[in-house]
Order: sequence, then C-alpha cells, then structure tokens
Amino acid sequence: MRPYVLINSAMSADGKISSFLRRQVRISGSEDLLRVERLRAESDAVMVGLGTVIADDPTLRVKSEALRSWRLERGVPENPLRIVADSRARTPPEARVLGPGCIVAVSRYAPEDRLKELSERCEIAICGEDRVDLRELLEMLYRRGVRRLMVEGGGTLNWSLIEQGLVDEICVFVGPMVIGGQDAPTLVDGRGFPENFQRLELESAERIDDGLLLKWRVVRSA
Amino acid sequence: MRPYVLINSAMSADGKISSFLRRQVRISGSEDLLRVERLRAESDAVMVGLGTVIADDPTLRVKSEALRSWRLERGVPENPLRIVADSRARTPPEARVLGPGCIVAVSRYAPEDRLKELSERCEIAICGEDRVDLRELLEMLYRRGVRRLMVEGGGTLNWSLIEQGLVDEICVFVGPMVIGGQDAPTLVDGRGFPENFQRLELESAERIDDGLLLKWRVVRSA
Repeated sequence: MRPYVLINSAMSADGKISSFLRRQVRISGSEDLLRVERLRAESDAVMVGLGTVIADDPTLRVKSEALRSWRLERGVPENPLRIVADSRARTPPEARVLGPGCIVAVSRYAPEDRLKELSERCEIAICGEDRVDLRELLEMLYRRGVRRLMVEGGGTLNWSLIEQGLVDEICVFVGPMVIGGQDAPTLVDGRGFPENFQRLELESAERIDDGLLLKWRVVRSA
Repeated sequence: MRPYVLINSAMSADGKISSFLRRQVRISGSEDLLRVERLRAESDAVMVGLGTVIADDPTLRVKSEALRSWRLERGVPENPLRIVADSRARTPPEARVLGPGCIVAVSRYAPEDRLKELSERCEIAICGEDRVDLRELLEMLYRRGVRRLMVEGGGTLNWSLIEQGLVDEICVFVGPMVIGGQDAPTLVDGRGFPENFQRLELESAERIDDGLLLKWRVVRSA
C-alpha cells in the first residue's frame, strides 16, 4: 500500500520548470500560488528531490496562518511531513526544509559522516541500495499514516516516480511564457521513455492567472 | 517587412516533441492532424529545420486532394513553398521535402560540393555568414509574396526564431502522455533565455482529440 501521489508543478508553455541557470523562476501567478498553498495544506506529506532543495531552497511549510490553524483543528500538525529524496545525503545542513517534521530519504550508499551531520537536523530514512527505493519509501510513509503525498519536483524525481508507476495525478500550471533551452529542466526529465509513453487522461483545464491549470490523471496500464 | 510567422507543433504534457531517440512519434490525434493539414493549406510557405528533415523526413506537402484543388482555385500552387533552414547544406539529397517548390536556405559556410549536389533537387538561398540569417530569409520570402509562414519545427529552429523576435503565434497541441527525458527535444530548445523570458498571451484553449489545443500570441516588448 502507498499514498495517493500527486505531482504539482508550474511550467512554461514549452515545458520548462526553470531556465538553464536552474535558479528559481516565477512562473505561477498569485492565484496559482494560493492554490499550491491550499494543496500543500491538504496533504499529509510533501516531497522534493535534492535538485529542488539546492536550486530553490524551499521551506515546504504552510505559510498561511489560517491554513495552519485549519490543520490544527483537524488534529494534524501545522505542517505536512517534509520529505527529501537524496540518495547520497547531499542536502546542505543549512537547507530551510530541514528541522522537526523533515525526513531525508537516503540510500545505503550515503556516507556515514554526512548522515551523522544531517541526523542532527532531521530524521533519516534509509531505503534502497545505491539510489532511494521510492516504492519502499512510499510504503514506509503509508505505514506512518501518509495517505496523500504532494510532490513538488523537480524533473528528475518526477521521472523516477512516473517511470515506476507511482503517480496518480499531475497538476500543472502552464504559464504564459517561453523559457527555451535544451539544457533547461523540464516537468519530467531523467532518461525518458523511448516508446510506450505513459498515457494520461485530461481531467480539467482551467484558465487561472494568465495561464492554464491542467489536471491529468495517470492511466494505469491493464 | 516579413511574413506573419506561426509555429505549429504537438508536444507531450511535459513539453517534449519526440523521445530521446529523436524519431518521429505520434502525439496528435486524427482531429489535430486534419487541423495541421488545413493550416498548411492556408499558408504561403512551410518551414522546418534540418533536424526535423533528418528525424521525420516530412514531405511538407498538402495530402488532401480537396485542399489542393481549393488552393488551385485560389490561383496559388497546389502546395505552399517548402523551406529548409540548413546552414551547412546537410539535407540528404533523397529527402522527401526536396523537389520543385523547395528552397534550402544555407549560410555562406556551406561547402560548394554539397550546394552543387542539392541545387539539382531544389532552389538554394544563401543568407547569413556561418548560420542562416533568419531575418534576411524571412524578408526574402516576403519579397517573393509569402505573407503567412507556418513553421513545423523543430525545437532548435523554434528557438532561433523566438530569440530573434520573429514569431507572431504559437499553436501547440498538448497530447495526453508523458515522454520524459532530459535529452528529449522540446518545443523550444537552443540556448534558452536565462531570464526575461518571452511573454505570451493565451488566445484560446480547446479540447481536441484527448488533449488540448493551445494558441499563444507572442507579446512584443514595447
């Protein structure tokens, strides 16, 4: 058993989630940012890959006081669990995502000294030999009560999850801009499918801000 | 003066126009293919980059007999002019795009022997020093009566045109699939913008086949 997994992202009209500089860029408008904040507050856990921690240094916490109170009223912590997929334990010790309520998932390959340093700032979960075993990680999260997991990027983590059939839904805001670049990160990077692409079903398309919010359901092959 | 330039493409939900194998893939459904054929018949010229010639070997001709007759009735040739942007004249002599009504645009860097061989199969236009000067090419096409140019890819040509402010509209069918791949070609490749991304305006979003047809207007900076 694993949680319901939803990928949420913003991309340019040409599928990029950042420029080739891999710095944080603003694609969403204000309405989409509110939507993302609500989605986060409705999730039991939020996950990112190491690349996103390094590029964006996100807090992954719920900023709105009202939404935090709403969570407390429901008897859950102010913030969803924060998960970093980081095979070699390279999360910088000063990363804002760290602190109580954060789990860094590493592989058995992660160096001892890095684990020791990180374990002062977060919980460590070891799953997988040389790379984080995402299925094992999701099963562990399920056992800890996580029923709804929001994945906030980036393209490499999205690829690993989709390739292994671990994603149920993809929510993407398409912003009114071209970023371009053969080396710019896209919504789904990694190796990519050579053929037999992952099929989706378009659930809704809604104009928000000056772009479009698309909700795709991931189609399970029979 | 230059023609009205419209980029038309199909991409996956994650912005890819092919897989990392760079072979032709089917993203459009049958309704979108008809739309592309109509768009082609309404254009004075159709342009692709060398990469697309090599990957897809397109004919770039109007397949529908009715649409060809419709063009003849209007007093224009059965097929729009076919343009290949190919700085070094590397278009294979057996490429299906070649033949009467095809112009291969090359730079002054293109080797003599390649030009000689190609010139038996098409018209050659020399513009630009080491790369095709696209602005010069578009001005030449305008002088020859081309008022509406349809660009059918790929990502590198799309980038060069957008970077130089030579595009008016981007029509993209977003297909219900994930292709993935950091090396897969995207709608807009090339170097990419580091910042100050090209702004777009969403003109329409329409469900066709099992995907979405988006029309973006390219916003000119003041």
